[in-house]
Amino acid sequence: MKYPTAIQNALDELGRLPGIGPKGAQRITYWLLARNLDDAKRLTDSILELKESISFCPVCWDFAEGGGLCRICEDQRRDVSLLCIVEEPRDVMAIERTGEFRGRYHVLHGSISPMDGVGPEQLRIRELLERLAGDEVEEVILATNPNVEGETTAIFLAKTLKQLSLKVTRLASGLPVGGDLEFADELTLGKALEARRDM
Amino acid sequence: MKYPTAIQNALDELGRLPGIGPKGAQRITYWLLARNLDDAKRLTDSILELKESISFCPVCWDFAEGGGLCRICEDQRRDVSLLCIVEEPRDVMAIERTGEFRGRYHVLHGSISPMDGVGPEQLRIRELLERLAGDEVEEVILATNPNVEGETTAIFLAKTLKQLSLKVTRLASGLPVGGDLEFADELTLGKALEARRDM
Repeated sequence: MKYPTAIQNALDELGRLPGIGPKGAQRITYWLLARNLDDAKRLTDSILELKESISFCPVCWDFAEGGGLCRICEDQRRDVSLLCIVEEPRDVMAIERTGEFRGRYHVLHGSISPMDGVGPEQLRIRELLERLAGDEVEEVILATNPNVEGETTAIFLAKTLKQLSLKVTRLASGLPVGGDLEFADELTLGKALEARRDM
Repeated sequence: MKYPTAIQNALDELGRLPGIGPKGAQRITYWLLARNLDDAKRLTDSILELKESISFCPVCWDFAEGGGLCRICEDQRRDVSLLCIVEEPRDVMAIERTGEFRGRYHVLHGSISPMDGVGPEQLRIRELLERLAGDEVEEVILATNPNVEGETTAIFLAKTLKQLSLKVTRLASGLPVGGDLEFADELTLGKALEARRDM
């Protein structure tokens, strides 16, 4: 037996969302069917509003509302001499949550990955260089992911940016706080040993 | 730092869906932001279409399209003498997937649960009795869940339906096919022993 068309369409569309499999899509579909129409409308309105009102900040390429600057680029109290380079907008949020960084950001929208056909020209690196030419940046923190693509991107950027005689730093690799030495993988433990600090 | 309002709203609404936590909502929101508007519209249209075109079948109370009978009640080839009673529409789908049942269904929309204030009058039991009065049903299969509420509902229905001199059966409890005896809980194993079959 097949589902009614409207149910099958909802299952298909919900199943395309990341992290939602066929079972999850079925659960959400039946949940929506049990709600009233207003609940469903609030959900669909929030999705459409998201698509309509969110654009990219023309300075740092993070998400911004209403076509203008993002909240961080708008904030005059942020330190313009510090620039943190991340792969994705979600990484901005992750660093903001630490409360440890008061500089600004630049979002690359990806990382160099020749296997997927992503080179430096597919990322927001041209925009970064234009920005650095006019900006008062003194230190660039490379906060790309600590994986192959992120490291490749960091190495490429470090080379490029050092030519502009900027201070270039990279996020530390090491043991996660609260983690167990025993459960650390050998690469992480190796990095932690290599980058050991005086006490 | 806070998210832009439109992002926060989408996070809130998506986070209300069953099985989606804050991390899942964030993942879906960023995924939607990276898609084009048409993709998001297809999703929201499918949700609104779901709410607008799906109603309850007036005979079995499963979901139906366009206000009429559901596909199973419409199908003249189904055996009208066999009626399978389930708690929810998703249970209809689960039994249909077995390909073992050619009768019709009745969806109760819940199970008796005094703790949650759900008694027989909150379920589609009145509709079931009306239906049985006019219908050519000979056997009623109680396919409520094998948990406390489902068993309570089955016992209640068995008592009520036997007064109508109908054959009333219940789904078998026992070991899941492909499962390991060692990992079966003692209740299931006890039921399997109790209901052992001649070979």
